[in-house]
Amino acid sequence: MAHPVSPLASPFPALPDIAGVTPRIVRAGYKDWGRCDLTYVELAEGTSVAGVFTRNLCCSSEVELGRANVAFGRARALVVNAGNSNAFTGYRGREAVEQIMDQVAGHLGCERTQVFVSSTGVIGVPLPKDKAREGVARALEAERCNWEEAANTIATTDTFPKGATATAMIGDIEVTISAIIKGSGMIAPDMATMLGYLFTDAAVEPGFLQACLSAANERTFSCITVDSDTSTSDTVLAFATGRAGNAPLASFQSPGAHAFAAAVHDVCRQLAHLVVRDGEGAQKFIAVTVTGAVTDESARKVALAIANSPLVKTAIAGEDANWGRVVMAVGKAGEPADRDRLSIGFGGTWAAREGVPLADYDEAPVAEHLRGQDISIEVDLGLGDGSATVWTCDLTHGYISINADYRS
Amino acid sequence: MAHPVSPLASPFPALPDIAGVTPRIVRAGYKDWGRCDLTYVELAEGTSVAGVFTRNLCCSSEVELGRANVAFGRARALVVNAGNSNAFTGYRGREAVEQIMDQVAGHLGCERTQVFVSSTGVIGVPLPKDKAREGVARALEAERCNWEEAANTIATTDTFPKGATATAMIGDIEVTISAIIKGSGMIAPDMATMLGYLFTDAAVEPGFLQACLSAANERTFSCITVDSDTSTSDTVLAFATGRAGNAPLASFQSPGAHAFAAAVHDVCRQLAHLVVRDGEGAQKFIAVTVTGAVTDESARKVALAIANSPLVKTAIAGEDANWGRVVMAVGKAGEPADRDRLSIGFGGTWAAREGVPLADYDEAPVAEHLRGQDISIEVDLGLGDGSATVWTCDLTHGYISINADYRS
Repeated sequence: MAHPVSPLASPFPALPDIAGVTPRIVRAGYKDWGRCDLTYVELAEGTSVAGVFTRNLCCSSEVELGRANVAFGRARALVVNAGNSNAFTGYRGREAVEQIMDQVAGHLGCERTQVFVSSTGVIGVPLPKDKAREGVARALEAERCNWEEAANTIATTDTFPKGATATAMIGDIEVTISAIIKGSGMIAPDMATMLGYLFTDAAVEPGFLQACLSAANERTFSCITVDSDTSTSDTVLAFATGRAGNAPLASFQSPGAHAFAAAVHDVCRQLAHLVVRDGEGAQKFIAVTVTGAVTDESARKVALAIANSPLVKTAIAGEDANWGRVVMAVGKAGEPADRDRLSIGFGGTWAAREGVPLADYDEAPVAEHLRGQDISIEVDLGLGDGSATVWTCDLTHGYISINADYRS
Repeated sequence: MAHPVSPLASPFPALPDIAGVTPRIVRAGYKDWGRCDLTYVELAEGTSVAGVFTRNLCCSSEVELGRANVAFGRARALVVNAGNSNAFTGYRGREAVEQIMDQVAGHLGCERTQVFVSSTGVIGVPLPKDKAREGVARALEAERCNWEEAANTIATTDTFPKGATATAMIGDIEVTISAIIKGSGMIAPDMATMLGYLFTDAAVEPGFLQACLSAANERTFSCITVDSDTSTSDTVLAFATGRAGNAPLASFQSPGAHAFAAAVHDVCRQLAHLVVRDGEGAQKFIAVTVTGAVTDESARKVALAIANSPLVKTAIAGEDANWGRVVMAVGKAGEPADRDRLSIGFGGTWAAREGVPLADYDEAPVAEHLRGQDISIEVDLGLGDGSATVWTCDLTHGYISINADYRS
């Protein structure tokens, strides 16, 4: 955490322990740094798992193996390496992951498909097997840590540790989700991969856990962007130990299923926002809401085109209500749009309605809104009922300083 | 031209006059500035026209009308307004364009579909009809100007005037192309729309002129990117007066047709490079060449993903041979790619081959290359025969300063 703490940082919340989940940290020494860099989380027998992974086609071995293992639906352990992403390392990288899976599975007496591994950090350098072996061995015997320690240990270029929690009632049983995440953009070589982990004591069948996570992902992690770049290792995993003792959730027909799905969504949204709030150089948190699109997916694509536009992001950095750049971004999205039905606003004040600037447009409340830290851009396409909200941050000199004033 | 001249600027070349083409400039006063801002080019009777236009769906009335008029194939005049883009102005903007078309057509006694209008500058403000009417009236009587004066007059945020020329032999007749262009990215409110105009004395049927321009566009203007943003008004028009006296070119079967098409391509490539060389904040000109793709179009998409990546562009600004960011950009392009066949190089030196960093990688020549102004990034996907080259510039503090340290 070499860079100053983001001005948009939130304090780490009080995260409850989750029955059946034991986090531990050690220093494997993947980099020459005086901090823990290996996180090990032991999970009770029978824990369900679900996962969503980067769509980047040049993904890491961790992602390939994780995606395959999620299909089996069960997990006993999670290992997160920080300081080396093990991406773009060919067969040697894959061997290092398989070694960790075998080592943990041997210790726990479980299938190796139940051991999940993530790595984040420099790319192109295979994860050193000896350091991994020794680190994992010590982690298996280490004392339990708290969630903030775990959040700090999975971090790389993050400027603050990130966690979120939520509860839900399943019948008369309260279940809890505690979750941590790391990521602040897509810096290489300290590739700021997004790695997120949800832990709950709810009893949930793997298929339904996957349904909840996938649905939440579509409206949260898939709706954030810092710089439009996509890591080769992005991963979010959800683990459900079942120790709360509720009747297992198997589908939306199960009592309490909707409440649980809402809690998953809530936690994912909190985590996603935290990543944006640690965007490189970010000074402002921006919500882009598109309504009136032909479909929700079309709305999401238009919102992402706006959120990824360097010209929109620099305009917000400059506190400039430049709706012309928003028009441009809408038009380039390639989705159905009609210039003469388009309305654009900032912070709830319309600047242009149905294709023309408002004659009585009062810029004062907009200027006031743009001087704040939490900015909203509203776009109505006037075509249908599709809507979406996407979150991003502004593009500032800080981004250039972090990413260009640097040698790998 | 408020910003300092780009360090990548080229001097304006000696552009020959073209028989049947008479450029003139006047000051219409669209903005409160002491410079000419209306360019009028009169074209001989029988001039063929072809055009390519922005794909931005929120395009201006000028683009809508120009696209419709090109279908008729003939042109007698071009009017370019600088200082007001007339985009996002609804029916009032359209009326202003139609007024100019009628005024010029009435003077020349031609169809109004033969009058082409472009506008560039602030958006959301209808082009003032009175200023346009008076400016056009004076332009119709003004003295002929030279190409550099015309290039300066169509410019807005450009830091240097841009022109290119080429010749071709059609039988024993030499034909000439002179061309000007403006654009330096997509700055709003002085939206740095790309407007380019080619003028030739060759006799060319409209259909074949369109074929030449469209083909050249695919490999030139469609292969440049400054900031991934797409103007609402981008336009390139080609005019052929036929005054050279060659047998009209009607297809690639016509003698000399290939030489003419090559000259059009050459001029378009020169113009496209000049726009990149005036990219906002650009310190380095970057050529991204992708080979081994499954198709040429797939190669172009991968090359654009690399060229548009803020992380790749900031790495080059930082003179950092960060091939990991290139891997990431390849993977996010969504085109066929195989991590284990991927090779990446800079300035002709491979950093990684077939999915792994080179063990004997010598960074010295790469570091030397990256300290220069003309940078090349080579990517081989190892899958097929598709290839493409895309040109861009680096992403620097200058870009942020121009686009964020500013109020509209």
